[in-house]
Amino acid sequence: MTKERLYLYDTTLRDGQQTQGVQFSTAEKLKITAVLDSLGIDYIEGGWPGANPTDSEYFEQVGSIRPRLAAFGMTKRAGRSAANDDVLAAVLNAGTPAVCLVGKSHSFHVSTALGITNAENTENIRASITHLVAQGREAMLDAEHFFDGYAADPVYALEAVHAAHDAGARWIVLCDTNGGSLPDDVARVVREVIASGIPGEKLGIHTHNDTEHAVANTLAAVLAGARQVQGTLNGLGERCGNANLTTLIPTLLLKEPFASRFETGVTLDALKGLKKASRVLDDILNRVPAKQAAYVGASAFAHKAGLHASAIAKDPTTYEHIDPALVGNARIVPMSNQAGQSNLRERLAQAGLEVARDDPRLPRILDRIKEMESRGYSYDTAQASFELLARRELGLLPEFFEVKRYRVTVERRRNKRGKMVSLSEAVVVVKIAGEKVLNVSESIGPDGSDRGPVNALSRALAKDLGPYQAIIDDLRLVDFKVRITDGGTEAVTRVIIDSADGQGRTWSTVGVSANIVDASFDALLDAINWKLIRDGTEV
Amino acid sequence: MTKERLYLYDTTLRDGQQTQGVQFSTAEKLKITAVLDSLGIDYIEGGWPGANPTDSEYFEQVGSIRPRLAAFGMTKRAGRSAANDDVLAAVLNAGTPAVCLVGKSHSFHVSTALGITNAENTENIRASITHLVAQGREAMLDAEHFFDGYAADPVYALEAVHAAHDAGARWIVLCDTNGGSLPDDVARVVREVIASGIPGEKLGIHTHNDTEHAVANTLAAVLAGARQVQGTLNGLGERCGNANLTTLIPTLLLKEPFASRFETGVTLDALKGLKKASRVLDDILNRVPAKQAAYVGASAFAHKAGLHASAIAKDPTTYEHIDPALVGNARIVPMSNQAGQSNLRERLAQAGLEVARDDPRLPRILDRIKEMESRGYSYDTAQASFELLARRELGLLPEFFEVKRYRVTVERRRNKRGKMVSLSEAVVVVKIAGEKVLNVSESIGPDGSDRGPVNALSRALAKDLGPYQAIIDDLRLVDFKVRITDGGTEAVTRVIIDSADGQGRTWSTVGVSANIVDASFDALLDAINWKLIRDGTEV
Repeated sequence: MTKERLYLYDTTLRDGQQTQGVQFSTAEKLKITAVLDSLGIDYIEGGWPGANPTDSEYFEQVGSIRPRLAAFGMTKRAGRSAANDDVLAAVLNAGTPAVCLVGKSHSFHVSTALGITNAENTENIRASITHLVAQGREAMLDAEHFFDGYAADPVYALEAVHAAHDAGARWIVLCDTNGGSLPDDVARVVREVIASGIPGEKLGIHTHNDTEHAVANTLAAVLAGARQVQGTLNGLGERCGNANLTTLIPTLLLKEPFASRFETGVTLDALKGLKKASRVLDDILNRVPAKQAAYVGASAFAHKAGLHASAIAKDPTTYEHIDPALVGNARIVPMSNQAGQSNLRERLAQAGLEVARDDPRLPRILDRIKEMESRGYSYDTAQASFELLARRELGLLPEFFEVKRYRVTVERRRNKRGKMVSLSEAVVVVKIAGEKVLNVSESIGPDGSDRGPVNALSRALAKDLGPYQAIIDDLRLVDFKVRITDGGTEAVTRVIIDSADGQGRTWSTVGVSANIVDASFDALLDAINWKLIRDGTEV
Repeated sequence: MTKERLYLYDTTLRDGQQTQGVQFSTAEKLKITAVLDSLGIDYIEGGWPGANPTDSEYFEQVGSIRPRLAAFGMTKRAGRSAANDDVLAAVLNAGTPAVCLVGKSHSFHVSTALGITNAENTENIRASITHLVAQGREAMLDAEHFFDGYAADPVYALEAVHAAHDAGARWIVLCDTNGGSLPDDVARVVREVIASGIPGEKLGIHTHNDTEHAVANTLAAVLAGARQVQGTLNGLGERCGNANLTTLIPTLLLKEPFASRFETGVTLDALKGLKKASRVLDDILNRVPAKQAAYVGASAFAHKAGLHASAIAKDPTTYEHIDPALVGNARIVPMSNQAGQSNLRERLAQAGLEVARDDPRLPRILDRIKEMESRGYSYDTAQASFELLARRELGLLPEFFEVKRYRVTVERRRNKRGKMVSLSEAVVVVKIAGEKVLNVSESIGPDGSDRGPVNALSRALAKDLGPYQAIIDDLRLVDFKVRITDGGTEAVTRVIIDSADGQGRTWSTVGVSANIVDASFDALLDAINWKLIRDGTEV
């Protein structure tokens, strides 16, 4: 049996950005685009060109990518032609191969929100889609509130989508805009739309998670005949979020009846990058990854119950619905670090540290990682700090210098012109080769303003490291991430610092403390020590 | 038409405690019990008596409550009688009216995990249920791995559950233990179990969220005939969690076909306490509430898109699937650069600030927001800082006090025992009603360790605010988020602080500066000023 093709349409950059608190920069949008491309997504909706400067800039910069780029916009307004609608023109100006226009399909919204007649709305849809097709674009109608509209006024809901279909739309996307529909209704309505004459190969499904049914509604629509699936990474999106592609993709690839009936652009090999894709988005948003997320969460394959853990040791399939490696995730079983050790050896080898399989230092390193993680450390991204921890246990970490003490002061007061200003000053005392060295630094940035206590500490520390000074001269702090996390008995601050040097190397280090300055300082020390080691510095 | 009764069974205290990192104290379990009772839950599963001391203690202390208390345990082991199984005896010793015993229904698990024959397992189920019934308990079988077992070996899966039914079990709970089942299969299997002779009035459903289908699978089972629904508050539970009662309850009460067909023990009045119930659990777990949670999340009725916000102002039903007040939640129209004046007026009205449509101060407020956002501020989540900004432009922000200056010092050095410790100390100078007040504070947490410069500043600032002191005494900092963002010419630090007070109110404020301490201080100031205004403080 040949499989039917399902198309995946990502709207992380558009509907995902409707999440409270989310505003992507152009650089972040390009980074997410690369992740979606590597997964094998078919369509990427990049934003609404003309609606805000970042979206327009994205379309200018994105260049040539494999997935089809779609611009989002709305159907032309009443009282002007499609060619004369400036909002629609701005959308077309982005020059994307695909264009998705939101249009009303619920007569209540046509009168209440737009204040026009049903006939005018239908004509807006028809004329807009006709215009897109005439311009050679792949045209899509985002049929807003379709399921609510169909429940209230099925005759008009069908009129609206048939207008798009008759005008040559490649896709008509049925939207559960308010997220209140349930799977049986979604399935029945999709079947009735197909029965009305629009083939399932032209229908898309776009759902929201307001009753935790976004994924279930999407799959119900697919089983009823829809062939385009819209969603976002990590279920980002307005209110409770959109359908979660990070959950839908493995379900479509691994679960029946989907795995046998359908194929998507995502290969089983690309699926192994799913967890990483999810984490890249969390990193960009500076969010703590959701531990209980389906498939990709840190707890998704964690077996806490004693009965479960002992059965898992006999056969992992007893308490796992899939093999976690299929999505790039890993099992967590208390007491068993069998899998942990081979994993660890691989990571050590990546850092150039070859350790034999039965080396007694391996379990010691694992214990130490476990202890540090229980205190709030995380070595997932902070590879350089992991390497230093392992070297310490392996006896391969020289002490280049010792920090005896530091003091940092932040003051805010009026300057002589009566303006409120802040000033940071740090003193760091280190011992190098038996010599005590005191350094002091302020923290004034290129614009003359104070850059804060971490910057002052970093400058004071790097001011004079004696024989090592030349090696760290080109070290730069490129990013700084702060999270409140669980440190055992109390909340602590975890700081991750990304550093770079003149050779273009970048590395990440972690520090944890209830005191944010203290945590930052530890991450800074790791950053410097890692560079000294990597450059083969002799003590 | 009379409605059919659906029974709600909460397992937050048992399966919920299988969540990574969760371990309730007895006091916390009693607090959760009170919340479940006030909601109108039918059964509360309190734990596994004998398996750990906290669970045994809970059953001793819980006393008389309206919901039926259930103790959890497992069917007797092979090679002894039910009366002589010490594990089962410990469960019965808790003296609960209901007892739920987990038993295998998947022949693969019978052989792999238990290492016994199918016949022995069936006899363990039969004898255990018979024993419970003889002791006058309401007996339940938790049929572990039922859906996977039915797929692999339907004959044995049915044999196992019929053994419990024939022995007089009040409920047979069908479990999707590994969370890998999908709704169509769940519905079909429930129908087939009913067809095999166990009436739906005796069937329960217990699901997990490993594919984001826990809620959908539960509702599919109910539509197929099951009449007991198991779940947890906030979807707590092993791996990806259990079916979320916080989502199931409003769906069953407010959505069709459930609302017309079924009744539960939860009244529409109790439903208004749903959001609060969810927050009580988050408080106990010291978790930041999930913003995007269905029904009860802070973002569940937040309308960010400009098109949505303007329609909501005309009629809230345009973009809301239910009235948020039904579950004790509220609408949020956040400020963002995608929002226009109608959005702004709606948000001001929520803060009790009525401004006419043509008030010239509206565009001034919008300009000010735009200017601040270009400097790195974000008012999407920081509603309290938004309100202060608007009040300032409207001339409605009294100056309660003025901060003249502050100084904060962080020192790290060896203490007299030679251990590296850090110490933070802050001095804040404020002017209140013409008087200058100096306050100084350290920052020592309950565990004796330094909590850092922001904590020290917060303590010094709140130490003596003269006439306002009583009002801010119950102010607590509940979360603190930091991110590096674009501040125009250079990267700046954006700090968002979530605060709470004794009345259960929470609010968020924002501060931005290149200096993280400075940014935090500004967010703190906003937090205090907002509370002074909300409490109607006179200058």
